[in-house]
Amino acid sequence: MRPTPTLLSLTLDAALLRIARLQDLSRIPDHLLVDLFHRTISAGKLTEKVLKLFLATDCEEIVLLVQLLNIKQPLVPVLPTSMSLIFQDSEVDIVIAALQPNLTSFFEAWQPFFSRFHIIVVKDPDMAADLKIPSGFDVKVYTKSDIEGLLGATSINFSGHSCRYFGYLVSRKKYVISIDDNCLPAKDTAGMTVDAVTQHMINLKTPATPFFFNTLYDPYRKGADFVRGYPFSLREGVECMLSSGLWLHNADYDPMTHVVKRNQRNTNYVDAVMTVPLGAMMPVSGINVAFNREVLGPVMFPGLRIRKEGKHRWDTLEDIWNGLCAKVVCDSLGYGVKTGLPYVMRSDAEAGKALESLKDWEGVKVMDNVLPFFQSLKLSRTAVTVDDCVKELASIVREKLAPKNPIFAKAADAMEEWTKLWKSHGAQNA
Amino acid sequence: MRPTPTLLSLTLDAALLRIARLQDLSRIPDHLLVDLFHRTISAGKLTEKVLKLFLATDCEEIVLLVQLLNIKQPLVPVLPTSMSLIFQDSEVDIVIAALQPNLTSFFEAWQPFFSRFHIIVVKDPDMAADLKIPSGFDVKVYTKSDIEGLLGATSINFSGHSCRYFGYLVSRKKYVISIDDNCLPAKDTAGMTVDAVTQHMINLKTPATPFFFNTLYDPYRKGADFVRGYPFSLREGVECMLSSGLWLHNADYDPMTHVVKRNQRNTNYVDAVMTVPLGAMMPVSGINVAFNREVLGPVMFPGLRIRKEGKHRWDTLEDIWNGLCAKVVCDSLGYGVKTGLPYVMRSDAEAGKALESLKDWEGVKVMDNVLPFFQSLKLSRTAVTVDDCVKELASIVREKLAPKNPIFAKAADAMEEWTKLWKSHGAQNA
Repeated sequence: MRPTPTLLSLTLDAALLRIARLQDLSRIPDHLLVDLFHRTISAGKLTEKVLKLFLATDCEEIVLLVQLLNIKQPLVPVLPTSMSLIFQDSEVDIVIAALQPNLTSFFEAWQPFFSRFHIIVVKDPDMAADLKIPSGFDVKVYTKSDIEGLLGATSINFSGHSCRYFGYLVSRKKYVISIDDNCLPAKDTAGMTVDAVTQHMINLKTPATPFFFNTLYDPYRKGADFVRGYPFSLREGVECMLSSGLWLHNADYDPMTHVVKRNQRNTNYVDAVMTVPLGAMMPVSGINVAFNREVLGPVMFPGLRIRKEGKHRWDTLEDIWNGLCAKVVCDSLGYGVKTGLPYVMRSDAEAGKALESLKDWEGVKVMDNVLPFFQSLKLSRTAVTVDDCVKELASIVREKLAPKNPIFAKAADAMEEWTKLWKSHGAQNA
Repeated sequence: MRPTPTLLSLTLDAALLRIARLQDLSRIPDHLLVDLFHRTISAGKLTEKVLKLFLATDCEEIVLLVQLLNIKQPLVPVLPTSMSLIFQDSEVDIVIAALQPNLTSFFEAWQPFFSRFHIIVVKDPDMAADLKIPSGFDVKVYTKSDIEGLLGATSINFSGHSCRYFGYLVSRKKYVISIDDNCLPAKDTAGMTVDAVTQHMINLKTPATPFFFNTLYDPYRKGADFVRGYPFSLREGVECMLSSGLWLHNADYDPMTHVVKRNQRNTNYVDAVMTVPLGAMMPVSGINVAFNREVLGPVMFPGLRIRKEGKHRWDTLEDIWNGLCAKVVCDSLGYGVKTGLPYVMRSDAEAGKALESLKDWEGVKVMDNVLPFFQSLKLSRTAVTVDDCVKELASIVREKLAPKNPIFAKAADAMEEWTKLWKSHGAQNA
């Protein structure tokens, strides 16, 4: 005759029956949890989901049991690998600067990745022809008259690649992703088409680690971690505010390099994301970029414009200057900046044209002034918001750089103007 | 009747006949060079080699002609891609710390890459068993009695992984490459076995770029370059002194991470080399490392030894400390440090054993003291050699860190001792 079961035993049996549907075991005392764990194993009910449920209790005995029994643990990345779980369509705007009228093939190629999101298209104010955008997208187009209507007279030049910044101003979302209209989705080394939107969101939603370099790159990536010697106090990381993606095929070179290496194409898919360390400066390219608009908006401006800047990426320094300002501000406020994945595939339609304006390009001299300036820059501890930092930065640019070249005085003007525009137009959130 | 040829024309014809064998055209006046170039094309003799010959003259008209005629230029990397051309077998020593007696499979696996070089094997002084090394290598083995015989009484502990530093002391070569004895050659993404020696030498022989981050990674690599915005004044780079390679399979984690992620293996082959930026600190691992011994020797010491340090990599901090010291010194003297390729394949023989000594491991606390120290460290401008820097560094360690934990006082002792040992034993070159 079987002994009469205890009430406790019956309760545990009842729990075991429903184990696959339970959401939380953390309130069960440790010794009962261990008992339930053994019963679960005996009953053949230890699925991956159930194991996670037990591990989530942080009960030391359970952790030890799992090790001793050599139970293969489900990989538990810091974040779920399917990022769609944790970012909402409503958090993201895609901003596209239209420098060519026909965006049909661009939109068709990006359809699988863009169609979930609201898309802001800003038409280059210098371009007369009407835009062609296929149907099936949630698109709002802004034109020259929208820019003038909203902003009135402004010292900021929104023509060419700079028009995308107007999109940052009118977005109401937390995150903005911007990709040049001559880029198509890239393929990774396995031949899979890269979802640049999701990768940017992973970059922005997982922490950055600017205070120590991790030799295995992004420690939050599936299959990676912090290497030996990485201080534990730094393993929580900081919030990532800017994600600077890369390009395959036609690389982002200056006019000289384009001319010298006209037949060279970037084919090296480097499967890594990394935080650019504190204090290290980098050339952020506007080709393929994402950022936290709510926080970083006041520093995402078209500030520096070289005199003969045209419609080509190799002409511009506006994004490089923007990136240096953003990096200095992030460093000062303890935020992170990442570079690496995602790649986009850049068309080489303009690759051969760099020779035309080679002699006029003043980017060479400019950068040799700009970099030492940023490297020696320290923003004061009293600048505690991005807006504070930009105002201070603008005044230092006016003092230190403007005497060297009038384009820096104009950059300081634009930066100050931008902080006002941001306050009146950009700062509202959805 | 054909006109009588001029002497000049005959000379050019003669040159054309021998064009494939000429080594240098730089002394030919530009207008004759252009004439010869046209004749070469007409004669169908413009091979890749000949084109290089013409381009090497730096004659502007030739460069323009090549562009106008849209002649596909041969890729001219900054360095020849076959590095065997520019590094000598006699420049390199391979240093192996033998922590296990049977090195047969290790040497057999590395045979294609090691057999050209002199190999220094340092036997862990704690290991009694005789070493097994296959024949066919130029090997010199150093044992406990060699260490004691050469150095006499020393405060430096050369046991365990630290024995390899004795090899650095007795090497007479310009470069040293050291790989742990539980590592085998890795395969790249194309399935090709990686020649770690050549990759380390490429890293050391091409410049490093610590002053600005290049988003396309190593700009000197074939197919890569400096991206737009990279200041031209920084494109020559600086000399690279240290190359920190990586590991596939069993990653280099601390004991905690090994226990938590006992089933996780590093499978992500990231095809990149990068300079760790000025001021950024990183955890250099001794598993797979190479350096310029002539310059960096005085800072390549086993300084920090945690109390329960055993024979496992996850026990040690000696290489992490070494790397931080080397990085600070390189930063101060304007040298570069690279990380990334080459990978080696690390065996996981020891992967499961980390749990045993988990509770005793004091690496957690130690690194949380060490990193802020190195990050705030500035060596004085009067320290102009690596030896100067190490002496200054040792005294700052004694002043700032030693009061926190006696292992730092021992580290300072070891660093001072090492500078003396280096002067008397290490500083001679071949």
